[in-house]
Amino acid sequence: MKKIILIPDSFKGTMTSGEICSIMETAIKRIYPEVQVISIPVADGGEGSVDAFLCAVGGEKKTIVVKGPQFEDMESFYGIIDNGKTAVIEMAACAGLPLVGNEKDPRKTTTYGVGQLILAAIQNGCQKVIMGLGGSATNDAGCGAAAALGVKFINFDGEQFTPVGGTLKDIAHIDVSSVNEEIKSVEFVTMCDINNPLYGQTGAAYIFGPQKGATPEIVEELDEGLKHVAEIIKSDLNKDVATLKGAGAAGGMGAGMVAFFDSKLQMGIETVLDTVNFDKVVSGADFVFSGEGKIDSQSIRGKVVIGVANRTKKANVPLIAVVGDIGDDIEAAYDLGVSAIFSINRVAIDFKFAKTRAKDDLLLTMDNIMRFIHRIKG
Amino acid sequence: MKKIILIPDSFKGTMTSGEICSIMETAIKRIYPEVQVISIPVADGGEGSVDAFLCAVGGEKKTIVVKGPQFEDMESFYGIIDNGKTAVIEMAACAGLPLVGNEKDPRKTTTYGVGQLILAAIQNGCQKVIMGLGGSATNDAGCGAAAALGVKFINFDGEQFTPVGGTLKDIAHIDVSSVNEEIKSVEFVTMCDINNPLYGQTGAAYIFGPQKGATPEIVEELDEGLKHVAEIIKSDLNKDVATLKGAGAAGGMGAGMVAFFDSKLQMGIETVLDTVNFDKVVSGADFVFSGEGKIDSQSIRGKVVIGVANRTKKANVPLIAVVGDIGDDIEAAYDLGVSAIFSINRVAIDFKFAKTRAKDDLLLTMDNIMRFIHRIKG
Repeated sequence: MKKIILIPDSFKGTMTSGEICSIMETAIKRIYPEVQVISIPVADGGEGSVDAFLCAVGGEKKTIVVKGPQFEDMESFYGIIDNGKTAVIEMAACAGLPLVGNEKDPRKTTTYGVGQLILAAIQNGCQKVIMGLGGSATNDAGCGAAAALGVKFINFDGEQFTPVGGTLKDIAHIDVSSVNEEIKSVEFVTMCDINNPLYGQTGAAYIFGPQKGATPEIVEELDEGLKHVAEIIKSDLNKDVATLKGAGAAGGMGAGMVAFFDSKLQMGIETVLDTVNFDKVVSGADFVFSGEGKIDSQSIRGKVVIGVANRTKKANVPLIAVVGDIGDDIEAAYDLGVSAIFSINRVAIDFKFAKTRAKDDLLLTMDNIMRFIHRIKG
Repeated sequence: MKKIILIPDSFKGTMTSGEICSIMETAIKRIYPEVQVISIPVADGGEGSVDAFLCAVGGEKKTIVVKGPQFEDMESFYGIIDNGKTAVIEMAACAGLPLVGNEKDPRKTTTYGVGQLILAAIQNGCQKVIMGLGGSATNDAGCGAAAALGVKFINFDGEQFTPVGGTLKDIAHIDVSSVNEEIKSVEFVTMCDINNPLYGQTGAAYIFGPQKGATPEIVEELDEGLKHVAEIIKSDLNKDVATLKGAGAAGGMGAGMVAFFDSKLQMGIETVLDTVNFDKVVSGADFVFSGEGKIDSQSIRGKVVIGVANRTKKANVPLIAVVGDIGDDIEAAYDLGVSAIFSINRVAIDFKFAKTRAKDDLLLTMDNIMRFIHRIKG
């Protein structure tokens, strides 16, 4: 046994991907003390994504004062990896829902700080920006971030302003003539695991507005604003975000990243796999361990385990998934390259009890798998 | 992959050991269609034990009319294996609790029919009797069975009678002078997985009386009877069953088998392993699969998985345990020779829901293990 790679998603509500890597490594090293273990905790774009990338590939965390979700000054951060060439930003670091406490109001919150983080990264020499969506308090379609980089939003009175969720409907024109020059040569990749469109019944406002504090009336107002901004983007920037899958992520930030930053939207796991150069890392590995809270063949798009399986299958390295729950009908997961799937559930108890012992159960389940491998392979 | 042996216990309340073998074989044959699968469903002595032995080693099921638990005539059965040389009897077949329906009364029920089954087997040429205890409606310390074979019980008025739970206290003497001659050359092995003594707070009446219909007053009466019969056995037969572990099994049938039939009491799994000639069968096997409802290092005596592990460890064949729940602190199970332990729990739900899907979960869990083995070993 020479090399084992760990590349798990988090188990939502129980363990971060970093914690899972740590527990898996502990169990592996008990049985194979000499094996090389490479930990790649998977970032999903939300809170903790910068740390996950820094853990996976090494790099530097930069702190900087930017605007928070309520336009207040706050200390935020981003990560620099790839020898300074790539920045990793999680929008939650300055536009996250926990930052507004009890004052949730997606009509008023901004992604302006996210734009400031982008600007700082570019001024630091980064040629690529990986943007993590998720956990946002905002519904501004990324207009705040765009404004921070020089995109001008003009209202029907001809005045420049910084749109927020409640004032998207006031945008008459979008002027990109003064946009920061450096940004044009920067490659943007936005991590986006959801399919929701920008507006409509399955759009950002209707699906995610309520958890950000929107009442039904406010949801309707926000939805109209998002529809309006899509029209202006179409007329002024000639970009169609109205039907774009994932445009509705993070209060419309998905749409904004495409419209204002020419970003591609990409599944989080694909971004991680590319960033860590997984195809090279996996070469020569004896096993890859992945995992997620629940594996389910019915919803495999964007799922970490299946994303990893695509790569391990090509590399012909066995992939073991260690998961919370195993859903019904997972035949497809095997077909897609997962070698084996083990649940950490060791006793028949409800999740409300199971989650309190998840870390112990993961350790013991990994211990058992490693004993089994050792017994068969030696 | 040439040979795989299946030797699981039942999962109490969800699957018989025979059903488990069948499901395991289905999963194995999907991945390795050519492999030889040897199924040894484990009998615990209770209901289904005769069928389990017949399934494991082949043989013949004999039906015969004997006395039921209430001295009624009923059709019962026993099994003949080992080329007619060994009989397998489950006492539940004519003294089982389900046979009395709502008329539970351990003061009145008898094991007389069990003695008739023994007699029939001997008259059929059997030289060995394997007796399965468990699931009994009786509390007669096996006196009924003994009476059927010619043991005379004399009361304080000098009259012969057939004692039942409520009349054990009336035994003044036990006379074995007229016992069936043929029985003396027969070897008896009684399957007994419990340690309970004949009487006292952890004895047959106190622990098992209530489930047989005894009120607290009746429990006390039964317990006194058991203590009394132990004294008569000591004085008249010079055998000490008062401190014998397992004497309290099946309403004192454990004691009766020792006192009246010179039987040895042996763990069920050991009896199965000996009977199927496991040490020979396991030779050359690639894997052995065992399992039980719950594996737990704190209570390993008499447990099927650990019993099997003792043998597979010597034979150096990997043993995989597939279980319902995995208890805490199972390190000892690995030390005793279990190679790996997998739970069939695939989702975090309470047992009341989990048990309804146990068969599907077992099939899918076995399928996963076999895929894993195939991926590693080819």
